[in-house]
Amino acid sequence: MQVPAGDLLEKIEFPSDLKQFSEDELELVSQQLRQYIIDVVSVNGGHFAASLGVVELTVALHYVLNTPYDQLVWDVGHQAYGHKILTGRRENFHTNRLYNGISGFPKRGESEYDTFGVGHSSTSISAALGMAVASHYKGETDRQHVAVIGDGAMTAGLAFEALNHAGIENSNLLVILNDNNMSIDPNVGALKEYLTDITTSKPYNRFRDDIAHVLTKLSAVGPDAFKIAKKIEKSIKGTLLKRSNFFEALKFRYFGPIDGHDVKHLTKVLKDLRNIPGPKLLHCVTVKGKGYALAEKDQTKWHAPGLFDKITGEIKKNKADKPQPPKYQDVFGHTIIELAEKNPKIMGITPAMPSGCSLNLMMKAMPARAFDVGIAEQHAVTFSAGMATQGLVPFCNIYSSFMQRAYDQVIHDVAIQKLNVVFCLDRAGVAGADGPTHHGAYDLAYMRCIPNMTVSAPMNEEELRNLMFTAQQENMGPFVIRYPRGNGVMVDWQRPMKAIIVGKGRMVCDGEDVAILSIGAIGNEATKAIAALNTEGYYPAHYDMRFVKPLDEVLLHNVFQKFNKVITVEDGCLEGGMGSAILEFMADNGYNATVKRLGIPDAIIEHGEQPELWAECGYDAAAIAQQVKQLGLKKSAHTIAS
Amino acid sequence: MQVPAGDLLEKIEFPSDLKQFSEDELELVSQQLRQYIIDVVSVNGGHFAASLGVVELTVALHYVLNTPYDQLVWDVGHQAYGHKILTGRRENFHTNRLYNGISGFPKRGESEYDTFGVGHSSTSISAALGMAVASHYKGETDRQHVAVIGDGAMTAGLAFEALNHAGIENSNLLVILNDNNMSIDPNVGALKEYLTDITTSKPYNRFRDDIAHVLTKLSAVGPDAFKIAKKIEKSIKGTLLKRSNFFEALKFRYFGPIDGHDVKHLTKVLKDLRNIPGPKLLHCVTVKGKGYALAEKDQTKWHAPGLFDKITGEIKKNKADKPQPPKYQDVFGHTIIELAEKNPKIMGITPAMPSGCSLNLMMKAMPARAFDVGIAEQHAVTFSAGMATQGLVPFCNIYSSFMQRAYDQVIHDVAIQKLNVVFCLDRAGVAGADGPTHHGAYDLAYMRCIPNMTVSAPMNEEELRNLMFTAQQENMGPFVIRYPRGNGVMVDWQRPMKAIIVGKGRMVCDGEDVAILSIGAIGNEATKAIAALNTEGYYPAHYDMRFVKPLDEVLLHNVFQKFNKVITVEDGCLEGGMGSAILEFMADNGYNATVKRLGIPDAIIEHGEQPELWAECGYDAAAIAQQVKQLGLKKSAHTIAS
Repeated sequence: MQVPAGDLLEKIEFPSDLKQFSEDELELVSQQLRQYIIDVVSVNGGHFAASLGVVELTVALHYVLNTPYDQLVWDVGHQAYGHKILTGRRENFHTNRLYNGISGFPKRGESEYDTFGVGHSSTSISAALGMAVASHYKGETDRQHVAVIGDGAMTAGLAFEALNHAGIENSNLLVILNDNNMSIDPNVGALKEYLTDITTSKPYNRFRDDIAHVLTKLSAVGPDAFKIAKKIEKSIKGTLLKRSNFFEALKFRYFGPIDGHDVKHLTKVLKDLRNIPGPKLLHCVTVKGKGYALAEKDQTKWHAPGLFDKITGEIKKNKADKPQPPKYQDVFGHTIIELAEKNPKIMGITPAMPSGCSLNLMMKAMPARAFDVGIAEQHAVTFSAGMATQGLVPFCNIYSSFMQRAYDQVIHDVAIQKLNVVFCLDRAGVAGADGPTHHGAYDLAYMRCIPNMTVSAPMNEEELRNLMFTAQQENMGPFVIRYPRGNGVMVDWQRPMKAIIVGKGRMVCDGEDVAILSIGAIGNEATKAIAALNTEGYYPAHYDMRFVKPLDEVLLHNVFQKFNKVITVEDGCLEGGMGSAILEFMADNGYNATVKRLGIPDAIIEHGEQPELWAECGYDAAAIAQQVKQLGLKKSAHTIAS
Repeated sequence: MQVPAGDLLEKIEFPSDLKQFSEDELELVSQQLRQYIIDVVSVNGGHFAASLGVVELTVALHYVLNTPYDQLVWDVGHQAYGHKILTGRRENFHTNRLYNGISGFPKRGESEYDTFGVGHSSTSISAALGMAVASHYKGETDRQHVAVIGDGAMTAGLAFEALNHAGIENSNLLVILNDNNMSIDPNVGALKEYLTDITTSKPYNRFRDDIAHVLTKLSAVGPDAFKIAKKIEKSIKGTLLKRSNFFEALKFRYFGPIDGHDVKHLTKVLKDLRNIPGPKLLHCVTVKGKGYALAEKDQTKWHAPGLFDKITGEIKKNKADKPQPPKYQDVFGHTIIELAEKNPKIMGITPAMPSGCSLNLMMKAMPARAFDVGIAEQHAVTFSAGMATQGLVPFCNIYSSFMQRAYDQVIHDVAIQKLNVVFCLDRAGVAGADGPTHHGAYDLAYMRCIPNMTVSAPMNEEELRNLMFTAQQENMGPFVIRYPRGNGVMVDWQRPMKAIIVGKGRMVCDGEDVAILSIGAIGNEATKAIAALNTEGYYPAHYDMRFVKPLDEVLLHNVFQKFNKVITVEDGCLEGGMGSAILEFMADNGYNATVKRLGIPDAIIEHGEQPELWAECGYDAAAIAQQVKQLGLKKSAHTIAS
């Protein structure tokens, strides 16, 4: 059968259109879907390898299920591009992850086929179970509920909690374990090794073969032995093999492992499973990046490679004439090694983000001192706390929005005990194309209310290094350093480090009439604003608070004695954020001033490039400048001593 | 051997003293330790059944281990009374959980034998692994690290994350699974059923017996069959039995199940395990309440029974002449049933706190609509979110401090998707004798920064009922109702319910000069303060904000137009709390006023009765009155129209 590429795919607007094809044609549909993903992602960017790995699964699921009545929950959602293309979004798929375009993740508001909004991992079993229990309650007995979850996501506690509950609920739930041995980086942990064991026919399958072989031989010994052999076989099948499986121990019926790229077989298995009631798990083995050789070979690199030439595989880079400032994550990655070389107490911990936060550098340079603990933010924090009780200084690096997963551990295990754990929160502030699930919007608010906590944010690379240097000193207690996604502002960033006095801000530039108080890297937008304002005759002062907790009270007394117009700027939520802390200081100290707080408003901010979102939220350089002009009473020649 | 009771125990100040006894004497030591716990708890109160269940384990551990060099981490800590008594705190044990007394939980500041502060469950494996990895790094190869964790605590995701990591770390870690089938309420979930399977010789042990029996018979058939039988046996032992165990699947060496009340056998097993490297798990079967018959029979009731007559078992109750106001938790428990009878969309969810939050009433009355999901706050929230996508209205009841465990799920799965989930946060504000781990201090701050969220707190039972009525209406989105531990203020509380306009506060009493703005039940302290103040000629106004988000802006405009002295009162942290929200309103609307914020200061507040802690923190009636007097300029005869 030879059909021109693209022909089949174009006939599919919605999953119902998929049913016009025979099972034999699904392979070609899969090929064309895969090619479409390659075509569009190579020129538009986005997550790549994960969606290639589930093309056949996506086609089979929508072929067999009656979506959207049947409910399909994608875990994380990196891998749902095929799903989006088959569910009414093929034409819009080129707007994926762009400002005002479709989301890079399933999103309820976008399509009725997106049953549950995702972005963070490991929510799918809980959500699908909630749906299944609701269907059961409503008497919708024919309704299917499917959660597709990766082996990486399966390591998070939330997934386990859901399995533990689902195992005893008599609801129609199918969990598909998409086992590709990967998170963004290679998956780690005991469960991963177990899954490898049972898929690679090492001890488990060898035993199965052994038993079969022995039983055959035994049957040849004579009729008595044959009867006994049957009895053993029955016993093994009846109980021990059931109990022998991790998921069966949790009362799931386990099926597999099967090849997740054989779409015809998948279709058959999924049809069979529809008729089996209760909680069940299908173990599919897939290859992340399947069908694009380079991606199969280097799966971490091709998780989200950016733009690339789909023929040559060359990843397009902005070629710069001169050296560029580094990413903040790389400043962290290099600096922790530099510090750890001098301070043997320093350890590094990441929950499954070694390449995302650049701890992979330390894992390579000092493997005994850097730990990827899997998708397990809670454990990452309490494990760090345990280390800190022994006098070590763990640097626990977690994306700001993922730290929400370990909030209790921060309070209960670190802050109450005043342990020396350094929390490096990467991707703080609006996170860009990943959108609302990934914006690190709330950390300043949810961290600063915790006693014993130091909460800081560097304005540039040098400050990040100095804060890291400061945090690793003796008896610093819990210490947060939050910094944004993306690049810094300094080319010459690898300067000698020095300690900062905890709670000490700094004046960036003196000025008159209006004071701008900023925290973190967004302060560079204030700097830009001031450069522009100066040309128009406005000369606001600018202070980099550096610490939201403790506040620099000396600095603030000076500011409020000198200025009665203040603008606060933060790349974080306005409710309870730094601006709010400044207001508390004012109230506690009896200051009156007009304070305009700039930051993320009380709304869910969608995806887009960071500068687009800063503008939308009203705290990019232009917005800051506008605020100064609105607030500033005088527009005069520069009167400050120059 | 007949030794008078108490004699042995008095010889033990520290675990090293325990080593003077022979293994045979440990049973008597255990008896005396158990009796001591019964003697003291019966007259002082506290957690009871859990500590009785681990008396033998506690004695055996301190006998075999070289504590505090060897590191023993108790999960949760309810069960650590025996440990406290054996580690220097026997004489002080009568101050347990009292204001300025010793903590009801292990606490690092209290003893070097308390290696890790606990209170919330399921942290022990992570913490002990952190210690073990630190020891490994430092080359302390002889050091033992033991985590004692209940089967209930094992259901939380954090414990699973820790097992998944520990399984691949080559560190000296022993996890003791204290399997008593209980959380505070009976444990639930698939893992619990699995543990019951493997301890009650149902399928698992029956299979073991079957195989043994069959192999014996097979051996009788002849030499060939014998050889084959041996081969099967070896194969079974070598691989399948290993894989057959949940914990072995996670790369732990599994031992047990053994009787956790046979102190001599425990001692022997623990000695053996010391010499086995790597991660290992000892499965101990114990009885919660062991040795006190009534407690063994009704384990939930005797988890923390209050004061009781140790001979008769009669639990002492305050005998009141007249009807008393109910506990807030019971108002919740009865009201959800009342609402659910009329609204079929309502469901109830609790993570392992049915008796603590009174959802047990609904579980009994409407078993198909009320779910105990185990110690699994994260799952409780996302499971609720899944239900809400299907148009149901889940009431997810979680203690305020435990909700910290599910912060990401609240943001990511509920708020971003604007789903109708009602969060009832019990034990909000200072929680009393359970101390810092259990104070619900931060919820107003960490909830109000989340977009789409409604955050409310009732001042009394009627308000709680009305807020619950309000929250279950159509399209209310995520809705927080937080209320404190303990009793309300209304005897006649079961009044007809009515909807409250979201974001609408109310004036409790009009007044002059000073306005008090309170949120939640602590407002009753303001009422008391005002009654006293009125007799001294102060007449502050009092407003019950009811909602921290959205704020009642109409009310606030009225307040700030009329008053320039305002006191805010909340049973929650000052950083980012309600007072801070009021300051934001003022700044955004250009109001100036002197604002004194009363609430939990930026410090870890220890344990004590709630009124003791309100006084300590400065927001009980006396403190509020004092603030009014400090702030109020005039002390005049009442001039308001009466």
